[in-house]
Order: sequence, then structure tokens, then C-alpha cells
Amino acid sequence: MKIGTGASPGIAFGKALVIKNEELVIEKKSVENIEEEKNRFEKAVEESKAQLLNIKEKAAKELDEGKSAIFDAHIMILEDPELISSTLNKIESEGVNAEYAFKEIIEQFIAIFEAMDNEYMRERASDLRDVSGRVFRNLMGIKVIDLSVLDEEVILVADDLTPSETVNMDKEKVLGFLTNIGGRTSHTAIMARTLEIPAVVGLKDITEVLKEGDIVAFNGETGEVIINPSEEEMNHYKELKNKHEKEKKELQNLKGKPSITKDGYKVEIVGNIGTPNDIEGLIKNDTEGVGLYRTEFIYMDRDTLPTEEEQFEAYKKVLQAMNPKPVVIRTLDIGGDKEVSYLNIDKEMNPFLGYRAIRLCLDKAEIFKVQLRALLRASIYGNLKIMFPMISSLEELLEAKKILEEAKRELDNEGVKYASNIEVGMMIEVPSAAIISDILAKEVDFFSIGTNDLIQYTTAVDRMNQKIRHLYNPFNPAVIRLIKMVIDNGHKEGIWVGMCGEMAGDKRMIPILLGLGLDEFSMSPISILPARKLIRSLNSKEMKKLSDEILKMNTAEEIEKFIENYFK
Amino acid sequence: MKIGTGASPGIAFGKALVIKNEELVIEKKSVENIEEEKNRFEKAVEESKAQLLNIKEKAAKELDEGKSAIFDAHIMILEDPELISSTLNKIESEGVNAEYAFKEIIEQFIAIFEAMDNEYMRERASDLRDVSGRVFRNLMGIKVIDLSVLDEEVILVADDLTPSETVNMDKEKVLGFLTNIGGRTSHTAIMARTLEIPAVVGLKDITEVLKEGDIVAFNGETGEVIINPSEEEMNHYKELKNKHEKEKKELQNLKGKPSITKDGYKVEIVGNIGTPNDIEGLIKNDTEGVGLYRTEFIYMDRDTLPTEEEQFEAYKKVLQAMNPKPVVIRTLDIGGDKEVSYLNIDKEMNPFLGYRAIRLCLDKAEIFKVQLRALLRASIYGNLKIMFPMISSLEELLEAKKILEEAKRELDNEGVKYASNIEVGMMIEVPSAAIISDILAKEVDFFSIGTNDLIQYTTAVDRMNQKIRHLYNPFNPAVIRLIKMVIDNGHKEGIWVGMCGEMAGDKRMIPILLGLGLDEFSMSPISILPARKLIRSLNSKEMKKLSDEILKMNTAEEIEKFIENYFK
Repeated sequence: MKIGTGASPGIAFGKALVIKNEELVIEKKSVENIEEEKNRFEKAVEESKAQLLNIKEKAAKELDEGKSAIFDAHIMILEDPELISSTLNKIESEGVNAEYAFKEIIEQFIAIFEAMDNEYMRERASDLRDVSGRVFRNLMGIKVIDLSVLDEEVILVADDLTPSETVNMDKEKVLGFLTNIGGRTSHTAIMARTLEIPAVVGLKDITEVLKEGDIVAFNGETGEVIINPSEEEMNHYKELKNKHEKEKKELQNLKGKPSITKDGYKVEIVGNIGTPNDIEGLIKNDTEGVGLYRTEFIYMDRDTLPTEEEQFEAYKKVLQAMNPKPVVIRTLDIGGDKEVSYLNIDKEMNPFLGYRAIRLCLDKAEIFKVQLRALLRASIYGNLKIMFPMISSLEELLEAKKILEEAKRELDNEGVKYASNIEVGMMIEVPSAAIISDILAKEVDFFSIGTNDLIQYTTAVDRMNQKIRHLYNPFNPAVIRLIKMVIDNGHKEGIWVGMCGEMAGDKRMIPILLGLGLDEFSMSPISILPARKLIRSLNSKEMKKLSDEILKMNTAEEIEKFIENYFK
Repeated sequence: MKIGTGASPGIAFGKALVIKNEELVIEKKSVENIEEEKNRFEKAVEESKAQLLNIKEKAAKELDEGKSAIFDAHIMILEDPELISSTLNKIESEGVNAEYAFKEIIEQFIAIFEAMDNEYMRERASDLRDVSGRVFRNLMGIKVIDLSVLDEEVILVADDLTPSETVNMDKEKVLGFLTNIGGRTSHTAIMARTLEIPAVVGLKDITEVLKEGDIVAFNGETGEVIINPSEEEMNHYKELKNKHEKEKKELQNLKGKPSITKDGYKVEIVGNIGTPNDIEGLIKNDTEGVGLYRTEFIYMDRDTLPTEEEQFEAYKKVLQAMNPKPVVIRTLDIGGDKEVSYLNIDKEMNPFLGYRAIRLCLDKAEIFKVQLRALLRASIYGNLKIMFPMISSLEELLEAKKILEEAKRELDNEGVKYASNIEVGMMIEVPSAAIISDILAKEVDFFSIGTNDLIQYTTAVDRMNQKIRHLYNPFNPAVIRLIKMVIDNGHKEGIWVGMCGEMAGDKRMIPILLGLGLDEFSMSPISILPARKLIRSLNSKEMKKLSDEILKMNTAEEIEKFIENYFK
């Protein structure tokens, strides 16, 4: 058995699909039978084309529009006579193997595109690289795994999953995730909870330990993973799964009921989403609204900026689906660990302390304004609240509000309507913002505390860094003090205070947050009903006393133990 | 004229020495005259050996012992018959140019060493790379610049200067630094002030603009840089230099006088140092002690860990030279931007939020304890205070103190003496530490606020990142509030509070810090007498009122303007 970090609850068992992204090593060899080698190359090209066509058809049906176009581009590359004939010629004239000949030719092509001082052409170089990887794999008999078209149900096993992998994958066929790296707040973990797929992360060497076709069973809550379980173990996991599903069913009885404590104190339990498609999961879990719509996914995994129209459609879809429930849409939070190639952001030494989110938006106001216009236009379809990420000073907040006003003036001049009562708020995720939250509260309608980053900056701990994972602790007394400070400062100015970090859905944390006076809890869809159940079992005055006790404590360990004993 | 960030005051003019670290491009060519090519290679090897011998002799005289040994290793590589004859054979058998032949051979050697699972052997690979770079440059007629042996006085122009470059350079011959990147708190800036060398940083493209041999004049205070100045401009700079030197002379009258305000409030003005040799500059500037001795330099630029004995000697030297004045020695703060190859620390995505300083020391207690033993043994030679860096929680502080106690017990058992009254303190540089400084104050004898990192984490801004430099502002109200919180919490527990970040020497900041009640100001040697002059011109009660006013302000800009007008 292996133990990792339980990242998304649920039990899963099934066949492992191990994704390894190793480098291909291509050697130069002399070949005897030139014709055979040329045939081998042509066959690999045909095979690659057939695979791409297959994905393309599937993508056109299932994925967002526009995403299937990229496969057309890839197919066209494989139909380029120059590329194919040059490779065939090289095989013939030099008597070398197809892999080597194709590598030499494709690298020339890539070098030419990359040398061009033109963003579009450089993007083509990256297409060439993608396509050539597929041809090499087909030539070398390495299985090409397309997550977007899976033939059977599998448990995905990878070092880590990238946003592009999770967006494109065939979600119906994926029973669970197991990864080497990551913690509860890593991208893979957040995606797993959003998609309600059980997951264990931080398993260190699971891609090495598991072989293709191994059967694996795991518990996404405890982090336990069993490789090739015995019949007895398998039965145990089947039982666990049934139990988990029974509990899930019981939670259904809470649908339609308010999130209210035993003594009548009402809070709002809402959900975090990444794409309009995620609303489905939220509605299924009876959300009271959207507490965080991460709009950066609209910008990712594509070649150019999304247009105002595309964005408008996405925001409208979410607002309409939720209407009249509130939808907090966060403006672009790109940079840091979320890269967007077409923005050509320089590599940074410390991306988490870098040029990202509102910093990028204020620097590139032309991009920011397109999003704000789309948001304003969509506002008439529901209950929109706009939220700015990564604000660290009053100046940035005022500048962001100024650009929002400019967008409104533009729409006024164009005679385009938008809602008149849009609340404007900000994330509290940088320590300086928490510390001056009394000043900032005068300028916004709400705060939403982003604990993932707030903990990271307050304790100077990269939450993705395995070596210092023990220092990333939401129970750190400094973090709890900052949360109290933000809630108190917000309430003093009469604004509501929410939380959209992972802490908001943590059942050990919810009692403390309730005691501190948090108004809104935004979490993964899967956590909504359990959180409601918990809130309905608590007394708000008792939780106030509990949080007062906790504020006197000196260490995270002391607080964690206290909470464990309190609810034992 | 170009404008950068004035990083170290003073006027400099002279010949530019531009250091470019471009990649060498080595092409394969056929050669006609094989003998000539072989001679060319042998000549380049001889030239390289002669250069290394020259540096080695100089190093043996001027540099710390041990450092010259590395040049012996390099010379030995060039005397390796296998390496030389293989290259000569390749030139002959393949009829290729010497650069290409040597590259092929050296890469085989490097690959062999790198593949070995042995730290020492991998270090040899890095030596091979160093030496081969020198041979390639000599072959290609590219001037090899050895900063440790300069022939004439120059102004160093570089993208940035590394710690190893500044440690090894011939300081007598360097009139000033000009760099493309960096801000007031970058390594280059700090080193320049420590060495009292005028410097302007953040000039973006100065290595492109300046050509070898250009004359350049600059002002390290205002950041102005003139390339090939006219006679008139040159006279102006000469005048400025005279004026600057006159002011410097007047400051000498303050030597021996206390750092006391007009109304009799006394503070301590002390200095930051990196190596024992820096004490000279401190003593020259009449320091009242050492507020920060950065011991990491003992660990850098070498192949193995320093022994307890080596460390003991270094600490003893500083303590003796300063006795009875206080010397605050910070324990190892490695990691982040300060890499040490022999510790084999994995590359991190966000090194500033990573495995560094006390985190590394608590993880590798065996390394930490060697330093603590050396410190304890040296303590009898002066007035030692031990300081832990990067503490983010009470747990870490208690753990560090526990290891210190263990080191004491070991020495007790060995019958080795150490001082009985050593103060133990900690840096406040992580926001969480500032926020729980009331808790931490009960466990230490002093705090020293490290503003460079504190600002960085509080505002989530990498201070080295040019694109967001405008957000790294010491006048950020959140930073000033945290400083007040730390000073108040320290005083409540009866401990003294110092500051060893760049803010402590900033003349716009000193009045505020005085008003907030800071007890100790630790700065670059060059800032000590100007700071004393300023303190002696201020009234502490007025500064208390001034800081109260400032604590009410909302933005950094408001605070900066207020201070400017106040002292106009």
C-alpha cells in the first residue's frame, strides 16, 4: 500500500493508465533496405493522420468549438509534400533510419519558424513539435495516449496533470487520478474536486511503481492506494464505495434547505468553477451561487486571446444558468503557475511573486478592458459580482476600478446596456491587502479571502514545493489572525466577506470560520452538501467562543489538536 | 544620458569593462593545414595555463586561503595527457578545426564525470566546463576577463554581478559597477555599498550600449550615467566627486560621537557584513557593532562544507575585532537566490518561497550544529548574539533553540568553554512571524526586522523582478504597520528590536523608524556616518508624532510625499 494526500474524496478502482512524458531518444542508424524504411515512414505518417482525424471528430462533438481546429492544423502539417518528400529523400540519399531523417528535417522546419519575428509563426513551430512527437512515437511503436479519446475506463496516473490535459480529457472514462506531485491545493487536486473525480496526489513515484494495465484501488479521502489488490481488499474497497455512495445519497436530502446554524445564523455556501460546463456539477449539488468563477481557463489552451464575444457568451451562460443566484466572476488571474504562451510572458525566477493577475491586467489594460466589457454586457443576464485578484495596495484597486469605469463609459457611448447594481469586490490573498483591509474595505462591496495564496505568502511557502510541505498549514495562527482582521475590517465598513480558498470547504476549518463571522463559503461542488450538513449541526455562538479560544493559541499543532478533540 | 537606480553613492568615471557571458557557438569546419591547427590548439592550452598560473599567484597573495587551490585543479586538467592527445588525434584523423575537436572530447569527459553517482566527481565536471570555456575563448581570440587580476582601473559593466564575481574581483581596480538588472536590494547593490564602490543598477541594456574602452561617468546616488562625456560634462563630474569627497570628510567629525537625537534619545547604528574582511570598512566608519553578519558567504564559492574550525576562525576574527561591541551573527541563510552546489538542492519553481535558511538548517541539523558549535566556541572572544533567519512559526524557533541547546551540551561534555550570556534572537522577515511577534517575543532576546524579504513576501513581489519593480515599495502602509506591530510587541516583552534590511539605512525612512521606536539600525558601512548625522539632527518626540501621522495614511505615495515635504 502507498499513502499520498487525499485530494478529492471518493473510492475508485480500475485499470491504471500511466502517462509518462519522457524524452524520445533518437539515434542515427544505417539501414540496409531503403524501400522498407521509406514505407515505414509513410505508414507512421498515415497512422498519425488517422489518429488526428479520430480525435478531431470526437473533439468537434464534445469539446468547445474552436478547439477542434487545432487538429486540422496538425493534419495539414502531415500533408505538407515538402516535409514528407524531404524526409524520404534523406532516407534514400543518406541510407539512414526514418526517425533520424525525419528529426533532421523537422528540426530545420522548426528552426525556420522559430527564427521568425512573428508570434503566429512561432506558434506554428510548436504545432510542428507536437505533430512530430506523434510521428516519432508511431515510428518507434510507442503508444500515443490521447486523453481526449479513451477506449475504456481508466485511472489516470501521471507525474502531474496540466490544465490542458484536464481540460481535454475524456471525463466520462476517467475513474480517478493518481499523481506523483502536488498537495491539496494543486491544480490536479482542485480539478479533481470540481469534476468529482476521486484523487490522491503527492505519491512521489506512483508512475514508476505502476505498470501499464495494473489494477489499482484507492481512497481519495485517506490517500490510501492499493496496487493489484487481493480479492479481499477489492471487496473492502467495493464496500467502501457503496458506503460513500450511500452517504452521498443521504446528503441529497439537504437539497433546497438553507445553510443555517442551529441557532438561526445563516451563511451562504457557494461553489468554485473553472468553465461554464462546471455549473452542471454546482447545480447538482444545490449551490446557492458561484463564489469564484476562474476566468483564466477561457484564455488557456489556445493560440490567441479570446474575443469579447467569446467571453461574453461564456459569462452569459453562467449568469443565466444561475440567475437569480449571485455569480462572482474573478477577472483574469494568469501568470504564476498558469502560463499562456501567446502573451509571451518572460520566464520568471519566482513566478508566484511575479507579473501576474491584476498586475498583468493593469499593465495590459487593452486586454483587461475586453474582459470588463464582456462582463458588463453579460451582467444583464443574471446577478453578477466582479472580483479583482492579487490586489496588494489601494493604488491597484483604484486603478482597476478606474478601468472598469472607462469600460462602462465606452458601453454608454455605444448605447449598450449593463446592470446598474453590479457589486465590485476583491480577493484578499496578498498579506499587505489583509493588513490594510480597513482601507480597502471603503472602496469595495465585498472581500473574498483566497487562502491558498494568502497562506503561501504569509508563511513564505510555495504550496507546490514538496520539501517544505509541512510548513504550509492553514492552521498557522498568523493566517487565522489575518482572516479575523479581514472579516472584522469588512464588517466595520458594512461589506460582506467570503472565502474562496480550499480552507472554506475544509470541515475542520468551517467551525472556526463560522465563529470568526465569515459570511460566504465558496468551495468545490463536491463539498457543498457536506458543508451544509456541518453548518446545520453547529451553534454559531458556541463557534464564536471556540474561535476566541483558538485566537489565543500559539501554534498550528495546538489549534489542530484542539479542533480534533472538540469534535471527537 | 541613461538613468538607472542609484544603488551605491559616490561619483565614478573611467574606462568601461563590459562583461558579456554569451554562449560560445562552436562550428565544425574542415581544415587544410592539420599541423597548424594542432599548433593553434597547443598554443591555446599554453595560454590558458599561463593565465591560470598568473591568477593563482595573485589569489594566493590576496584571497582567502583555499580559494587558490581551485586554480591548481584547473591547471592540472590542462596537463592531462589523455585530454590533450585525444584532441590532437581528432584534429588529425578527422581533419577538423581545433574548437570542434576539443568540444567533442571535453564533452565526452564531462559526460563521464556527470554520470558518476558521486558528488566529488560531478564537481570535477564543473571544473572541466570552466577550464574548457577558457580554452575555447583563447582559441577563438575572445578576451578572457579575469576579474581577480585586472591590469588597470575600470568600471565594471555587466548584466548582473554574481556573488562569486564580487568575491573574487580585484577590488582596488574597480571604480564602479553598472548593471542591466537589479534594484536597491539586489546582491550587486548590497555588495557595492559594502565595498563603498559607486554603482548604478537596473540600466536595462547598458552592456549593449557600452563598447569596450568607452569612457563612462556616473552618479551612484541619482542613477545618472553619461557615456563618453564631453570635457564640460567630465569637469562637472570631477566637481561632483570633489564635493562628495568633501562631505565624506566632514562626516569624519562624527566619529566617536553617540547616535543620539537632539532630545537625548539614543539608538545604536551598526553595520552589515558578509565576510570577516568587511570589518575594516565598518571600523573605518566608526560602527557601534555588527548588526548582521551574513555567514552564508563562508559556505559559498567552494566545493565542500566549511569545517567547524574554519567557521570558528572566521567568527572569532570578527568578534575579536569588534570586542566589546556587539556582533549579531545570522546562522546560515542559503537557498533562494543563494545557491550552493555541493548541497545538491533541487531547482525550485519559486526559490524565494522554498527550501532555504532555517528550513534547510532544521532539515539538515548535522550541518546546522557544526555552525552552532563554531559560534559557541567563538563566543568567548567577544560580544556574540546569535540570530536565526526565516522563522515563520513558533515551532521552528523552538526547534532551532533546541539544537542550540544540544550543541551547548556537546561542548559541556567535551569541556569546551563558551560565553554564558549569549543573546539569541531571530529575523522578522516572513509576514507570519511579524503577525505572531507577540508570541515569538517571549522566546528570544531580540528581533531584527529583515525588510528586504519582509516587503517581498508581504506584497508578493520578487524584488529582483524588473516588471513589477514599481510594486516593491518600502513605504507600503502594510509594511509600516507590520514594523510597528513588531516593535510594539518586542517592547511589550522587554526585548530590543533592530532592523537589518535596506530600509534601516534609507535617510527618508530613518525618521519614521525612529518615531516607531526602533532600537538598532544596521546598514552598509557607507551609510553609518550619514545616518548618525541625521539622527543627531532629529527630535524623537517630533518623529513619534510624524510616525503617528504616517500610520493613518492609505498609500505609499502619500507617505513618500509627506516625508519629502516634511524635510524640504
